[in-house]
Amino acid sequence: MEIKKSLLALAISSLVMSGSVFSADADAVSIEKLKESFSYEVYGVIAMQALTRDYNEAGKALWAEDSNWKLNNESRIGFRGSKDLAKGPTFIWQIESGYVGGSSAAPGADGKLGVRDTFVGFEGESWGKIRVGRVLTPIYEIIDWPGSNPGLGDVYDWGYGIAGAPYQDRQSDTVRWDSPTWGGFSVDLAFGRGDNVADADSNWAGAAVHYAFGGIILQAAYERNDSSKSGKSAGFEFDPATGNSKPTAAVAAQDWINDTYLIGVQGNFENGLGFFAQYKMMEADSQIAGVDDQSQNSYTAGVMYNVSDYQFKIGYAANDKLEDGGKKVAHTDDSVISGQVMYFIDPSAVVYTRVRHVERGEGDTKRVDNENPEFMEYSVGVEYYF
Amino acid sequence: MEIKKSLLALAISSLVMSGSVFSADADAVSIEKLKESFSYEVYGVIAMQALTRDYNEAGKALWAEDSNWKLNNESRIGFRGSKDLAKGPTFIWQIESGYVGGSSAAPGADGKLGVRDTFVGFEGESWGKIRVGRVLTPIYEIIDWPGSNPGLGDVYDWGYGIAGAPYQDRQSDTVRWDSPTWGGFSVDLAFGRGDNVADADSNWAGAAVHYAFGGIILQAAYERNDSSKSGKSAGFEFDPATGNSKPTAAVAAQDWINDTYLIGVQGNFENGLGFFAQYKMMEADSQIAGVDDQSQNSYTAGVMYNVSDYQFKIGYAANDKLEDGGKKVAHTDDSVISGQVMYFIDPSAVVYTRVRHVERGEGDTKRVDNENPEFMEYSVGVEYYF
Amino acid sequence: MEIKKSLLALAISSLVMSGSVFSADADAVSIEKLKESFSYEVYGVIAMQALTRDYNEAGKALWAEDSNWKLNNESRIGFRGSKDLAKGPTFIWQIESGYVGGSSAAPGADGKLGVRDTFVGFEGESWGKIRVGRVLTPIYEIIDWPGSNPGLGDVYDWGYGIAGAPYQDRQSDTVRWDSPTWGGFSVDLAFGRGDNVADADSNWAGAAVHYAFGGIILQAAYERNDSSKSGKSAGFEFDPATGNSKPTAAVAAQDWINDTYLIGVQGNFENGLGFFAQYKMMEADSQIAGVDDQSQNSYTAGVMYNVSDYQFKIGYAANDKLEDGGKKVAHTDDSVISGQVMYFIDPSAVVYTRVRHVERGEGDTKRVDNENPEFMEYSVGVEYYF
Repeated sequence: MEIKKSLLALAISSLVMSGSVFSADADAVSIEKLKESFSYEVYGVIAMQALTRDYNEAGKALWAEDSNWKLNNESRIGFRGSKDLAKGPTFIWQIESGYVGGSSAAPGADGKLGVRDTFVGFEGESWGKIRVGRVLTPIYEIIDWPGSNPGLGDVYDWGYGIAGAPYQDRQSDTVRWDSPTWGGFSVDLAFGRGDNVADADSNWAGAAVHYAFGGIILQAAYERNDSSKSGKSAGFEFDPATGNSKPTAAVAAQDWINDTYLIGVQGNFENGLGFFAQYKMMEADSQIAGVDDQSQNSYTAGVMYNVSDYQFKIGYAANDKLEDGGKKVAHTDDSVISGQVMYFIDPSAVVYTRVRHVERGEGDTKRVDNENPEFMEYSVGVEYYF
Repeated sequence: MEIKKSLLALAISSLVMSGSVFSADADAVSIEKLKESFSYEVYGVIAMQALTRDYNEAGKALWAEDSNWKLNNESRIGFRGSKDLAKGPTFIWQIESGYVGGSSAAPGADGKLGVRDTFVGFEGESWGKIRVGRVLTPIYEIIDWPGSNPGLGDVYDWGYGIAGAPYQDRQSDTVRWDSPTWGGFSVDLAFGRGDNVADADSNWAGAAVHYAFGGIILQAAYERNDSSKSGKSAGFEFDPATGNSKPTAAVAAQDWINDTYLIGVQGNFENGLGFFAQYKMMEADSQIAGVDDQSQNSYTAGVMYNVSDYQFKIGYAANDKLEDGGKKVAHTDDSVISGQVMYFIDPSAVVYTRVRHVERGEGDTKRVDNENPEFMEYSVGVEYYF
Repeated sequence: MEIKKSLLALAISSLVMSGSVFSADADAVSIEKLKESFSYEVYGVIAMQALTRDYNEAGKALWAEDSNWKLNNESRIGFRGSKDLAKGPTFIWQIESGYVGGSSAAPGADGKLGVRDTFVGFEGESWGKIRVGRVLTPIYEIIDWPGSNPGLGDVYDWGYGIAGAPYQDRQSDTVRWDSPTWGGFSVDLAFGRGDNVADADSNWAGAAVHYAFGGIILQAAYERNDSSKSGKSAGFEFDPATGNSKPTAAVAAQDWINDTYLIGVQGNFENGLGFFAQYKMMEADSQIAGVDDQSQNSYTAGVMYNVSDYQFKIGYAANDKLEDGGKKVAHTDDSVISGQVMYFIDPSAVVYTRVRHVERGEGDTKRVDNENPEFMEYSVGVEYYF
């Protein structure tokens, strides 16, 4: 027994000296600390949603889908680490997979490492965090959360009709600085390359400011995309046949300058109430002779109430009509209303059910019986974080 | 030394209280238990096979391959976890990659997370296990094992000639319940979406029952695929020129209803002997005017003998001739015979060598000198589980 | 306390007996050893590079790229393990992802498991290491390192103009043996299938020998590729219009036998100085009537100086003019010169900056104002190993 005790003492002293396994107050071997002694961490979100949709005829035509149910497995796994460099600041890195299984996609279509936030960077208490690689843009981070939850994304996130790229989302070839918090105030600055890296003019830059006080956060953000790809309709002209505007013939991509502005507010209070609201202004300056400038505005808002292990949340978002050459284009406004009940089945897991109605304007195309494409969606889901 | 001992005692008590590191009988720090305290587990199968094939001329034409050797790296890695929810049952999840390297495929073609069984679910002792996501169908699980081993799959698994989809294998958009075992009896029920999720009529459902007693397991299973894709020949008609049937012109996919039935038995006895046998009946009801219904039957059987660290196994499988409109179609029957010697080089690893002969009927096409395509295959392999 | 001490003693004895957690001299619980007790290891290289290029007009035409900056995230993650088999030698295996994010590639394009070295094998002290799967070829391992660093690869690695495949790099369907070191002498032998596995004639084989003494390593290597794909220009003929050679019309691929020879030397001395030099002879024997044989020679050399935590390194590599039918083809020679300063910011991490000039001969095509395509490149990067 003696040799074993001695071994043990040495073992413990070794662990204490390394400082990696015993917690700060030296009162326990901590499994968490032990895991930290690894030079990497595996983390993940396990997220499965079952949903069914009820499309109208125009919706079936637009999305080429019948009304039925399917599963979205938005689970993802990542590796990350931080390392106090011997002769430098703290080095941070992350590699994250995409979703492991969207319905109807090829199995594992996005289940590759590097699809979601994947970066290297440095971190310091006094100057914040610099990340280089594939990260969210400052304005998009706010659009994504809280702006697009619960289930408001197909209008407020990617539902715009404006030409060019009003904002990137998760973008490669990016440098981003997140400031520390100065008395409730913080800043994010970022710039990066556009979608066409081979083109020197394909670039973007953006910023966001946040001010937090008494449960409230005020936010403002901006992003510019130069020479951006036209992922959407490239222009409109008056159509005498219908009295409405119609899309012009195809216009070369890469010919827009987009400026997008956002202001927002959110609050979470001790009585369990919370809310958010945002207004987003998108402008596209045409760089093509004879093609008009465009603009489009969006807004989103929601309220939630936390009680016991439940959260009740209602959200609404809309895109105003697209303006082309200063004139509103008919049938280009979108809206979504969504309600959700979430239950914390565990400190690290939730289950939820959600109902939402989505209506999309798509110009005069894809309209059947003069109706906009729309659907009702009913879903249940589970999310677990580790 | 005293402080270290004290630290140690506290450390140990902490571990004991957490219940995560000491095994149930409290007699050892278990590395297994320590790993379990992680919120996830990495697991894998490392499986490499070297094989060479000797094709006849019709085989070279059908498979467009010369006779030579290659490697199949069917290794895969997965992440999985289970979590006793504070306010619910045990939550289970799994994310598994595809094979990391089939020969002649692009490197890592399937090495994505989510290609193999990838699901979330709940588990309870009294009611079994519900999984939602991408899992095996009940009938396919039996076809795959024991029905298609050793090396019987290119006939018994995917070698059928019948139109439509007689069964799915590993299918996304699936809900599956596995019952607990009630006195040797257990049931699997599952349903899910077909290959075309956008089509409301593309669905499947299936079930299997198992009854185990005295080393024997009796099994029966069923699967229906509605509006299934025609992955195979879409119909046959009498060809006066040859006196045989020939495929009709291309027929729209999504126009079959498939019903498939299976009965099977397997046994493993204390004297080292084992066996399995299955009979599989596949029916395809044509939903196309003027196109006949089809049916095809298959069977598989094998015997094995375990002695010392060796296992000897011989298997045979065959597809009967396809029947189209009640008439047998010439040259549509397939067969495979395979023999294997396996050696347990470690409790967690085997090496094996396998010889097999495969003959495929493919109608009158792909026949050279009136011979069916066929090959001999010789292989060696290693498999290791962690 | 007694029970806890007893638990502890048992725990420790269990660990000691398993031999997996205590280090060899039994004086400490080692986190490293603890990690080794896992049946797998996660390892990785985190490597990010920011670069900008200044192309001449011919370069812009050849590479279809403007002058701008971008990021290359060459980080990769792998799983590996070794297992002392109960009844066999040590079993080794590895599965490695590709790079998680090249600029302008689809996110995670190569972030799949199995893209880089992915194999199973066996290892023994007396006979070395056999690996089966996807590994580097012996000659390519030397070309890659030290031959192509810092930043010499676009000439010395893949910049050749010769027809066929002078060498594979990381090749699937490969068997490779690495000998142990016998008095400074070691050998690598490997063979495998070519790029067209379905073609029995598509094969390669290669070898390398290494002899180390007094800080010097002498190296020689050889590789043959039979019936290799023509990834490059397939032949040249005299063009009376220009007085130069021009590529002949397209010639069927798979019609070359390539032999490539390499000799090299490298040294690292205690005074901090180091160097490397290699000469590579590539021959392509045409198997096509009327198409000439080709040959091309390459060389690379570099010097480095290590002082304190810095390494300074300069490298130069060039491809001589391609010879076709014994005649030199104009404008087919390439060169690169590169300088790099590296700083060890941590024992496990470096940062570096690199400047290089690349000139590529591409025959008479892609020449603007009679200039070869060329560019200057400026980059900074960080690499961290775990």
